Amino acid sequence: MNPEEQVLDRIERARRRRPKVREERVTLAHGSGGKATQTLVEAIFLEAFRNPLLEPLEDAAALSVDGARLALTTDSFVVSPLFFPGGDIGDLAVNGTVNDLAVSGARPLYLTAGFILEEGFPIADLTRIVDSMRAAAQAAGVAVVTGDTKVVQRGKGDGCYVNTAGVGVVDHPGRLGAATVRPGDAVLVSGPVGAHGITIMLARGELDIEADLVSDTAPLHGLTAALLAAAPGVRAMRDATRGGVATVLNEVARAAGVAVVVDEQAVPVEPEVRGASELLGIDPLYVACEGRMVVFVDGAEADAALAAMRGHPLGGRAALIGRVKDDPPGLVLLNTVFGGTRICDLLVGDPLPRIC
Amino acid sequence: MNPEEQVLDRIERARRRRPKVREERVTLAHGSGGKATQTLVEAIFLEAFRNPLLEPLEDAAALSVDGARLALTTDSFVVSPLFFPGGDIGDLAVNGTVNDLAVSGARPLYLTAGFILEEGFPIADLTRIVDSMRAAAQAAGVAVVTGDTKVVQRGKGDGCYVNTAGVGVVDHPGRLGAATVRPGDAVLVSGPVGAHGITIMLARGELDIEADLVSDTAPLHGLTAALLAAAPGVRAMRDATRGGVATVLNEVARAAGVAVVVDEQAVPVEPEVRGASELLGIDPLYVACEGRMVVFVDGAEADAALAAMRGHPLGGRAALIGRVKDDPPGLVLLNTVFGGTRICDLLVGDPLPRIC
Repeated sequence: MNPEEQVLDRIERARRRRPKVREERVTLAHGSGGKATQTLVEAIFLEAFRNPLLEPLEDAAALSVDGARLALTTDSFVVSPLFFPGGDIGDLAVNGTVNDLAVSGARPLYLTAGFILEEGFPIADLTRIVDSMRAAAQAAGVAVVTGDTKVVQRGKGDGCYVNTAGVGVVDHPGRLGAATVRPGDAVLVSGPVGAHGITIMLARGELDIEADLVSDTAPLHGLTAALLAAAPGVRAMRDATRGGVATVLNEVARAAGVAVVVDEQAVPVEPEVRGASELLGIDPLYVACEGRMVVFVDGAEADAALAAMRGHPLGGRAALIGRVKDDPPGLVLLNTVFGGTRICDLLVGDPLPRIC
Repeated sequence: MNPEEQVLDRIERARRRRPKVREERVTLAHGSGGKATQTLVEAIFLEAFRNPLLEPLEDAAALSVDGARLALTTDSFVVSPLFFPGGDIGDLAVNGTVNDLAVSGARPLYLTAGFILEEGFPIADLTRIVDSMRAAAQAAGVAVVTGDTKVVQRGKGDGCYVNTAGVGVVDHPGRLGAATVRPGDAVLVSGPVGAHGITIMLARGELDIEADLVSDTAPLHGLTAALLAAAPGVRAMRDATRGGVATVLNEVARAAGVAVVVDEQAVPVEPEVRGASELLGIDPLYVACEGRMVVFVDGAEADAALAAMRGHPLGGRAALIGRVKDDPPGLVLLNTVFGGTRICDLLVGDPLPRIC
């Protein structure tokens, strides 16, 4: 083998290797969305439940039930603090599941709501959270149709955890998914990244940083519908939550076996987010958003896609941030502001726990 | 008004009164399945999310999506201990959601799985739980198609909480539901009650009681299918989980505006369950099962329904326990073993927290 073949062979062998959780106990990193999360999901959950619907590990599963094309998804929300500038765990729980359906090409219809309440949690706070879920559901055009409430003893929770699952119907005729991404595709983001994660960090009040920031939590179903109507060549959409844009790019590069090359300077970041990120020593590319998505689209339709997104209130600052190439497969390369190129890998460790 | 009219008027006014949570903070009773849970659900969740699909407060919502008749349900599981004789939180989480679909007349198809893990939870325990979910899903013929994992800091959870949501397809042509129950209907249970709840209590090891008991956790979809095929006059089925058989009877009496008259002696209870219940000072009628259901069926089909249930491995000890009458509406009356009659109301307080 020549050196290039050796590299490819090494990558291929790494991909075929059965993942294994090396830790004996769950760490916060297992919930970060980064490398540890991926290993946990693949080694334990995928390994046990393996089936063709779960296997793509998309944001929602694509189901065919009784002739209907459905999408099904779930998310638990454990954000701390429960209330933060721009939102709370309630609208986050609705928007998060609406977005997982929307980026799967589905029209969100119905939600479930499961609450795990800690003994002693103020009823007034619960009412506020539920009101915020009601408003978010109304704004997204979905109905909460079934639910469940459990109460755990004081010290066995953190006030209120919320799980939502969602069902949507897929009208879009094409097949979307990370595995369909191919060289030549354009990579877009729908707006400035990282505001949600930084807002949560600052809302904890543990840092002596003040910034005029609010979470970007928002329902993306209108934006995805406008985009799909204007650009049928959309291959995949993912909302950039835990682990941020960098994690999405890595997941897609890996699933499609392609290289993703991103121009760091092209990624929109609010000055307040950039400033706070620098103080915190983290890269905004890894910071969670709750109302932003990454789009992979046929390169020939990049302009149409951008125009469609910019024509929507939630995509006014959408940007083309990169291109898909064939080499090196499975990797994300970043052309830095300093003119260099570096590998932008999955996150190791967990700088931002309990963000969503 | 004559005295009888006055009673009816009082009941009607009570039913119309807007429920209100009087406590300022969440208590364990809000998670018991009894009166406090009902008030919380009606005053906060139903009030905010009110829509025709949620309103019946059935175990699963009946949806029509793109021509398909679906059922959608969710449950969070916070049982303590996580492992107990006869099962663990994993098979409980699968069977619980399978059963909510099955008693709604649906064929369970797809599950979601959301995990909230506490930092430090042993990976070996997680693997054991997930293996048990895999086996339960296989036994019930359902696939886990999407999931989510969150990690919370040490002291903000209790090892592992699991949420499952489920989607099923409704093949049954009729309309099932508590509101369709009418006077003359027969009331059946599928087998001895209370084994799950008592097993959990004893597994905590806080009581000095030894009994040879295992949880009754089991998937009911086969039993419900056999029953529906044999007795098209089935009006409603409910699995008797939190709050036990008595809670189900009260929910149905209230939803249908009927009286349910139960013969205490006819309710099957294992001697070990009866003995432990007496020592604990609780009534087995209020103790959770995880593989038993209550069935309301046209009185003319009671024998056919009983025969169908007894022909299934999970219904071998099914029994006719009572009848539906028209008066007094909304109440459950118990003909006791001592020859008297007493009102069997919703549970107040919470003698059995974290049962499921």
